[in-house]
Amino acid sequence: MIESQSNVQIKYLQKLIKNSRFRRKEKCFVVEGWKMVGEALRHHLVSKLYISADSAGQLREKVTEDEFAVIESGVPTELLSENLFRELSDTVSPQGILALVRMPEYQRSDFMESGQAAVLCLENIQDPGNLGTMLRTAEGAGMSGIIMSSDCVDLFNPKVVRSTMGALFRVPYYICEDMTTEVERLKKEDYSVYAAHLKGTKDYTEEDYSGRVAVLIGNEANGLSDSVAGRADKKVIIPMEGELESLNAAVSAALLMYEIHRKKHA
Amino acid sequence: MIESQSNVQIKYLQKLIKNSRFRRKEKCFVVEGWKMVGEALRHHLVSKLYISADSAGQLREKVTEDEFAVIESGVPTELLSENLFRELSDTVSPQGILALVRMPEYQRSDFMESGQAAVLCLENIQDPGNLGTMLRTAEGAGMSGIIMSSDCVDLFNPKVVRSTMGALFRVPYYICEDMTTEVERLKKEDYSVYAAHLKGTKDYTEEDYSGRVAVLIGNEANGLSDSVAGRADKKVIIPMEGELESLNAAVSAALLMYEIHRKKHA
Repeated sequence: MIESQSNVQIKYLQKLIKNSRFRRKEKCFVVEGWKMVGEALRHHLVSKLYISADSAGQLREKVTEDEFAVIESGVPTELLSENLFRELSDTVSPQGILALVRMPEYQRSDFMESGQAAVLCLENIQDPGNLGTMLRTAEGAGMSGIIMSSDCVDLFNPKVVRSTMGALFRVPYYICEDMTTEVERLKKEDYSVYAAHLKGTKDYTEEDYSGRVAVLIGNEANGLSDSVAGRADKKVIIPMEGELESLNAAVSAALLMYEIHRKKHA
Repeated sequence: MIESQSNVQIKYLQKLIKNSRFRRKEKCFVVEGWKMVGEALRHHLVSKLYISADSAGQLREKVTEDEFAVIESGVPTELLSENLFRELSDTVSPQGILALVRMPEYQRSDFMESGQAAVLCLENIQDPGNLGTMLRTAEGAGMSGIIMSSDCVDLFNPKVVRSTMGALFRVPYYICEDMTTEVERLKKEDYSVYAAHLKGTKDYTEEDYSGRVAVLIGNEANGLSDSVAGRADKKVIIPMEGELESLNAAVSAALLMYEIHRKKHA
């Protein structure tokens, strides 16, 4: 059983939890809680399990048969003392399980090639809860995948991971260097590119979203950059009553993604 | 200039920031940042302004003419030292302004009596960001008001206040003791009551939402209680692709509220 914070594995986990650059370098991240660890197991991405002393006896009942089979096929497991686990944990009521997980990896072509592909494009999203919620909603709305600019909050930030509710393992993603270049590329690939924009000219419900579509959502405070919005095929607006200046970014994204879902399934 | 944490006004503000019961008793709460303070001023709800020493010179340029006129009409203003302000502030980059604000008060009848009233009903919502976002979206979607069960997170929690983006001052609300009783009451008042439910039988886009409508949204982890869901006129479902178990509560609420908006403005 590991009891000391100075243990080399614990230091490694702590660095992965805190440092997004280190996560990118290692192509690993940390996942917490039975549900998310179960997801990671089913996707065969767990390198190592860490269980608190009090939770070790629950392992068999807390995971499904399939997940247990993955562990038995050779996932190493370490016990941590209760105190040490609580210090590592990112949550108020730790569930006693966390895992060192390899990042799922995708090629852009994995999800971009269908004639009815629908892609959510995010520029400079900064709130972890928003990004996680957008990924979760993207799965629900049946989006093909997500393209993020490299200045978005890290997808493997513990708060993002938690708020995806598992969608992180199921929605393919691609990180582009520059969203302006990416929009040009999408247009060459026959994508219709829609920008959610406060100065949009067309109500978002009036589009038919046929063929390949991409929807652009911008930063929480500033929206899309002019360079990106200016290159979109169409600026669409979500109507707002009252004196509100804007909707929450994850809410705007949800309304647009579900509108696309509706039109594609009409 | 106030410099000490043991100043009686500072202790009062701190208690208001931390303690929801104290806020209810005093019918006051604390608002931070220029935009939100400006809203509170325009609604004539500010009892006192607190400005950090470095920000005092900015007051005239940071508020509108109308807001400044309200201050000049007799809102007392206190200077706080930079250090003290930072300690009080709930944010990473404090804007140097906060206000002691009276809670806006409504009667249930203020927003329930129109023949086309649309009301969002929230049972046991726990996440401050979700509640704030729902209020913000409710304004955008033109809802008449919000009914909350008394076990929801406090509407005047600093995180809720911030995430409403001002909608807190513009969307009427009512807190009911018991949502089951409230649903019975709504039905007697000719409201059609829709429950967002994972076991819903009808797609949420297939309803016409005519006349008075109420939409029920439940707790983030457990959804609506059986007692409340069982009394709804209809359980509606938001379709989900993939393996997702549920959508985020604020996203579900947004999709339903905007669907009602669409039908009422069709």
